[in-house]
Amino acid sequence: MSNCIVAQSGGPTVAINASLAGVLKANEESRQFEHVYGSLNGITGILDDRLIDLTSCIEKDPEFIDRLTVTPAMYLGSCRYKMPQPGSEEGNEIYTQIFKYFEEYDVDTFFYIGGNDSMDTVMQLSKYASMIGSSVKVLGIPKTIDNDLCHTDHTPGFGSAAKYVAASVREVAHDAYIYGIKSVTIIEIMGRDAGWLTAASALARTENSPAPHLIYLPETAFDIKKCIADVKELLEYENNVIIAISEGIRDSEGRYISTTDAGSDIFGHNHLSGAGKSLENILKIALEVKVRSIEINVLQRCASHLASLTDLEESKAQGAYAVAMAKEGHTGEMMTITRKEGDTYETAIGSFPIDQIANGVKNVPREWINEEGNDVTEEMIDYLRPLILGEPAVSYKDGLPDYLEVPHLI
Amino acid sequence: MSNCIVAQSGGPTVAINASLAGVLKANEESRQFEHVYGSLNGITGILDDRLIDLTSCIEKDPEFIDRLTVTPAMYLGSCRYKMPQPGSEEGNEIYTQIFKYFEEYDVDTFFYIGGNDSMDTVMQLSKYASMIGSSVKVLGIPKTIDNDLCHTDHTPGFGSAAKYVAASVREVAHDAYIYGIKSVTIIEIMGRDAGWLTAASALARTENSPAPHLIYLPETAFDIKKCIADVKELLEYENNVIIAISEGIRDSEGRYISTTDAGSDIFGHNHLSGAGKSLENILKIALEVKVRSIEINVLQRCASHLASLTDLEESKAQGAYAVAMAKEGHTGEMMTITRKEGDTYETAIGSFPIDQIANGVKNVPREWINEEGNDVTEEMIDYLRPLILGEPAVSYKDGLPDYLEVPHLI
Repeated sequence: MSNCIVAQSGGPTVAINASLAGVLKANEESRQFEHVYGSLNGITGILDDRLIDLTSCIEKDPEFIDRLTVTPAMYLGSCRYKMPQPGSEEGNEIYTQIFKYFEEYDVDTFFYIGGNDSMDTVMQLSKYASMIGSSVKVLGIPKTIDNDLCHTDHTPGFGSAAKYVAASVREVAHDAYIYGIKSVTIIEIMGRDAGWLTAASALARTENSPAPHLIYLPETAFDIKKCIADVKELLEYENNVIIAISEGIRDSEGRYISTTDAGSDIFGHNHLSGAGKSLENILKIALEVKVRSIEINVLQRCASHLASLTDLEESKAQGAYAVAMAKEGHTGEMMTITRKEGDTYETAIGSFPIDQIANGVKNVPREWINEEGNDVTEEMIDYLRPLILGEPAVSYKDGLPDYLEVPHLI
Repeated sequence: MSNCIVAQSGGPTVAINASLAGVLKANEESRQFEHVYGSLNGITGILDDRLIDLTSCIEKDPEFIDRLTVTPAMYLGSCRYKMPQPGSEEGNEIYTQIFKYFEEYDVDTFFYIGGNDSMDTVMQLSKYASMIGSSVKVLGIPKTIDNDLCHTDHTPGFGSAAKYVAASVREVAHDAYIYGIKSVTIIEIMGRDAGWLTAASALARTENSPAPHLIYLPETAFDIKKCIADVKELLEYENNVIIAISEGIRDSEGRYISTTDAGSDIFGHNHLSGAGKSLENILKIALEVKVRSIEINVLQRCASHLASLTDLEESKAQGAYAVAMAKEGHTGEMMTITRKEGDTYETAIGSFPIDQIANGVKNVPREWINEEGNDVTEEMIDYLRPLILGEPAVSYKDGLPDYLEVPHLI
């Protein structure tokens, strides 16, 4: 009986450990692999020979899988490592080393749980395997709070982040309503190029509370003059105007509202900060009312205490499905979710060729943003609504969420 | 049968509505007051004649009290209104107006739920009542996430904020651990002059995780050179160093690490922001590792989804106790909590003369901070531990916390 290796990569989400739990759970049932190894810090754990035996973790702690499911961020640690092109000198060395390692550990399948950049790694590795005639299967299990992967209805981790954003906006609205003076509150939400998560702020609305009153996504050009006019108009009949903006909003010429840090990472992404602060400063001068900005911080991707049960269950199901796909001999594919037609929310897990997914980006369709570019449509809200449903049973110890420890990473 | 007026003032907390619920619940049982009126936006609701009848809210919605208990911020709205000195021309007018209003509505007792500034209002009103021989009783019910009111073991709202801070620091630590590179994460926590809430970050620690590794409170002088040396030393054996700082940390000459906004409010408080950002910039240059700062935003005072049950129950009990105190004829007092001696956490609700509380500040005692000034002692942790215990039953609707709406304030 052969083994498999699982690794996690990219930025944290609340659901990435649920997918790992899904792999483990499926293998507990099918006993397809003798050992499920975890590679620490993504693919670099293979290059540096840092594996742990997850099968023995389960044996030692019967609650391991359940606790893992609700533990935030990466149990196995992460990396931001861009695979070199196969064929290059550096590439040849790296790929040879990885596949030698697979042989050494009798690895049948490598599962990589990650976002867009990690799916590029899945594509490169599966291509290389086919090139050298290796039988090692390479499968991608998606995760990203950005929800920007193609050929899947939505991505693991997004529903929980969306729930956190919507709940936070609702709570901040309560915080803002208390003073009887005119005020504007700007809430900055993660999402460099895709506005899905910012759109989820719309779920905070209730029958009596229209907050957030304005929503700006990076998919449409941000017009500061129009924004000032919109807020002015709202302030005529609302005391407290709440604005949700994506960190990546930019004007019609593509200029970010804030580019305080022009540095870019190895994948060429710019690191943004301060779109909210910039807009705050502009509105303060333009409107002469109290304006404050709040950055929904990294908790939007690691607050497991407010996870979406739907998200965790679907993430787990995709991990389990990947194990089944490996058994059927699939390789070079990413797990997907398809939403069935009809009024009730039903999904099916599937898979899709990785070369049609890697390096693609799924943005919010223009028709799901209103014509004025300052709100989302009812269709968008219908799409989002089921993704945040349900609350997982997080166990509390001494008044705090009791997550699985990651001592081996320290 | 006469009536009472309740109002809320100051900054939001998660528990301030629980105290209001306590007043309502006690009156449901004792029927001491015919009507419990709510004054909108604190004392200004009395000046502007904006009352609501809370007794009828209960009649209309049998779940009103329970839902109110877990609704964040002020159901009745807030104000930041500093009472003029009685005796001054402006003062005479205002006090005359208020007590005329009390007479008009047959008010027996005025309950004011608030922090330090609100207790000043309680003191002034009760003094005035005694001066003019009015029988109206004026009682204060405390709330503040700062935990800085004197003559009480701790204040309503603090335990929930402490729980939020500790849970967030734990989740951020999970977020920080994932990369195998050296990094420093600074977490900025509210607390201008009192470090209680920042101290609560210590509760995030577990047997295997020492995060936060360093804690800096405003009560001791912040020494940037010592801080850099401490972080350097930690980075020798830790990959990820987590630092919790109060927004109000300042050096031995009393200079804030950041004073980006030198403006002060009508109570003379400076509004601070950016202590974390300032420290981030300093450490980036000094250490040449990845440094990021996170501001735990206003959610620390309004995230009812992560409230402390102990806090909500005690807040409710103090609201109820105030009703009983009014019956016994008390006036010019604030409700208090006393912790009983012994190993198990037991408290008693009491009250204390307001003139010994108003305008006083309870800072963290020096002996509860370690000698080096970069951590808290075990005694502090023992004090904090019971305050965050228990999770209230927050009801969720469509995947989000279902709070009481405040449509009348809009």
